[in-house]
Amino acid sequence: MTKLDESTIIKIFQKEFGNKKFVSEDVETFNLGKIKIIAKTDTLVESTDIPKKMELEDAARKSIVACVSDFASKGVRPEFGIISINLPNNITHSKITSIAKGFKKAAKEYGIVILGGDTNSGKEIVFNVSIFGNSNKIVTRKDSKIGDIVFVTGPFGYTKIGLDLLLGKRNDKGKFAEKSIKSMTNPKPKISFGLKNKKYFSSSMDSSDGLSTTLNEMSKQSKKKFVINNIPVRRDLEKYAKSHNLDLISLVFHGGEEYEFVFTVQPKYKKIIKKNARLLKTPIIEIGQVESGNGVFLKEGRNYNRIRDLGWKHFR
Amino acid sequence: MTKLDESTIIKIFQKEFGNKKFVSEDVETFNLGKIKIIAKTDTLVESTDIPKKMELEDAARKSIVACVSDFASKGVRPEFGIISINLPNNITHSKITSIAKGFKKAAKEYGIVILGGDTNSGKEIVFNVSIFGNSNKIVTRKDSKIGDIVFVTGPFGYTKIGLDLLLGKRNDKGKFAEKSIKSMTNPKPKISFGLKNKKYFSSSMDSSDGLSTTLNEMSKQSKKKFVINNIPVRRDLEKYAKSHNLDLISLVFHGGEEYEFVFTVQPKYKKIIKKNARLLKTPIIEIGQVESGNGVFLKEGRNYNRIRDLGWKHFR
Repeated sequence: MTKLDESTIIKIFQKEFGNKKFVSEDVETFNLGKIKIIAKTDTLVESTDIPKKMELEDAARKSIVACVSDFASKGVRPEFGIISINLPNNITHSKITSIAKGFKKAAKEYGIVILGGDTNSGKEIVFNVSIFGNSNKIVTRKDSKIGDIVFVTGPFGYTKIGLDLLLGKRNDKGKFAEKSIKSMTNPKPKISFGLKNKKYFSSSMDSSDGLSTTLNEMSKQSKKKFVINNIPVRRDLEKYAKSHNLDLISLVFHGGEEYEFVFTVQPKYKKIIKKNARLLKTPIIEIGQVESGNGVFLKEGRNYNRIRDLGWKHFR
Repeated sequence: MTKLDESTIIKIFQKEFGNKKFVSEDVETFNLGKIKIIAKTDTLVESTDIPKKMELEDAARKSIVACVSDFASKGVRPEFGIISINLPNNITHSKITSIAKGFKKAAKEYGIVILGGDTNSGKEIVFNVSIFGNSNKIVTRKDSKIGDIVFVTGPFGYTKIGLDLLLGKRNDKGKFAEKSIKSMTNPKPKISFGLKNKKYFSSSMDSSDGLSTTLNEMSKQSKKKFVINNIPVRRDLEKYAKSHNLDLISLVFHGGEEYEFVFTVQPKYKKIIKKNARLLKTPIIEIGQVESGNGVFLKEGRNYNRIRDLGWKHFR
C-alpha cells in the first residue's frame, strides 16, 4: 500500500470540497458581524510529535505555542483559546497535572484566556488547540516585492539536534546539548516583535515546517525569486556541525520546529525594524533579498545553489 | 492503577487553572471587538466513538453534527467550521474520500462554510471539529423556573440498540433495526426549531450525553426539581424493549448520542411552541414540569422514582 503524504490527503479534500479549502494557510480568517476573526488550530499527536524524553508539560505548552507562532508571524494578538485533549485510559494523575501546568504556562506567557475544552478517551495523547484573535488586516505570504529585504527571527538549526538528543540518537551533554534540546521543548515565538512591526511587513510566514519550506512557499506565492546570502546560524552551531560532520545547510534549512518567522520589508524600513528588534530584544537576522524570477537560491560568492523545499512533512 | 473518569480529569485542570474553566458547557462564548462569538469543539476518536461497522462518511458527518446539536439547543446559527484530522499512515485513498464526503455532507446540510483545517499522522483516526457563530444572547442551563414545562425534541431510546447492532452485540434485521442504526449513524439536530424558538426557552441543553445526564444537569444548575410524567418514547421501541426484555427507562434516559435537546418554556408559550414544531415538522414531546426542590423524578401514578445521572461518560 502506498503511503499517502499530506499534500495527497489535502488534494482529496480539495477535490471533494470543489475549491481551495484545505490549502495550508498560516491562519483562518472569517467575518462574524463586522469583526474579522483570526483563528489557528494545531494538533500535537503523541506518536508523531512528542518524543518520549519530552516532558508532557513542555508538550502541552508547545501545542499552544505552535498556534501563537502563526499569530506572531501575522502580527495578531492571541486572545482566547479552546483546548481538546485525548488521553489514554491508563494515564496517571501526575501526568494530567503536568499537562494542565503546561497549558497554563503558555496561556500566562502569551496572555491567552483559555475558555475551556473537552477531554476524550483515546489510544494515545492528542492535544488540539485553537486560538482566536481579531485583526482588520492580515499580512499574506504572497505580497513580497522585488527589492524587499528578507529577515528571519532566529537563529535556526538547533532543533534537529535537539530532536535527535530527545530521541536518543545522540548522547551529547553540556551547554550546547541543553540549548538544542530547549529549542525543541521550549520554543518562544516573537509575538511582541510581530505585533509591533506587522505594519512594515510586505509578506510573512511562520517557519515551523522548516525554513526551506517557508521560503519556497513565500517565493511561490509571491511569484518572486528569493536569494539568500546569509545563513541564519550562530558560531556554536557551525562548530558543532563541523566537528560532528553534519550538513549545516540541512540543519538550518530543513530542520523545522523552530517557531520563528520569515518576513520581508522594503529597504526603507530596515532601520526602524532593526531599532524595534533591539528595543524588544528580539534577535532578527537579515538573510537575503527578493528578486524577479522564481525559486529560492543560496548565493555563495558567485555560486547560486537552489534551496529546495525539504522541510518537515507529516505522513512522510 | 485507578482509571480516571472525565470529571476527575476536569477537576485537575480546574485546580491548575484556579477557576471554573473546563466546566462542561454546551458552547464557549467570547467577545472580540463588539461581537459575541459562539464556538463549539467536538472530538471523535476511532477507538472510542466509531464502531467498526460505522461508515467513515457517517462518522465524519457526525463529528460536525455533534457541534451543530449544541448550537441547535442554544438557538445559534453555525456559520463557519475548522476541521483537524489525525489519520494513520496506512489509510487508503477511498477512506479519505469517504471522510471528506461526510464533512461536506454535514457542511451542506447545515449551511456551514468550512474554512480549512489541518491533517496529522497518528495511531488512530481522530476528527476534531470547531464551529463558530455569533449571538447576543445564549440560553443557559440554569434558568428554568417553577411551573415551566419540560420538552424534548425526540423521541429517545433507539441509539443504544443501534450501537449494539453496530458492535455486533445484536443481530436483528428489518425496519426497526435499520431505524435504530440510523439513529446512531445519522443524527439530525433540530437546528431550525432551535433558531426559531430560542426566544421562548427559559433553559435548554443538548442531550447527547444521555437524557438523564441532561435533565440532572439542568435541574442542578437551575436549583429546581424536574418531574417527568411522560417518557419520550414511541410504540415500536416499547414493543421491542418488552419482547427483548430490555429496560425501557435505561434505553430512553441513559442511552445518549441522540443529539436532540431538552428545553423548558413558560406555560403561556406552549401553544406557539407546538404550532412552530408542526410548521417545522419537528417532533417535540412534552415530558414534564419544573417544580421547587431538587433532583429529577419520574412520576408514575403516585410514585416518584429518582432518575439518576447515568448517561454516557468518557473514561468509564
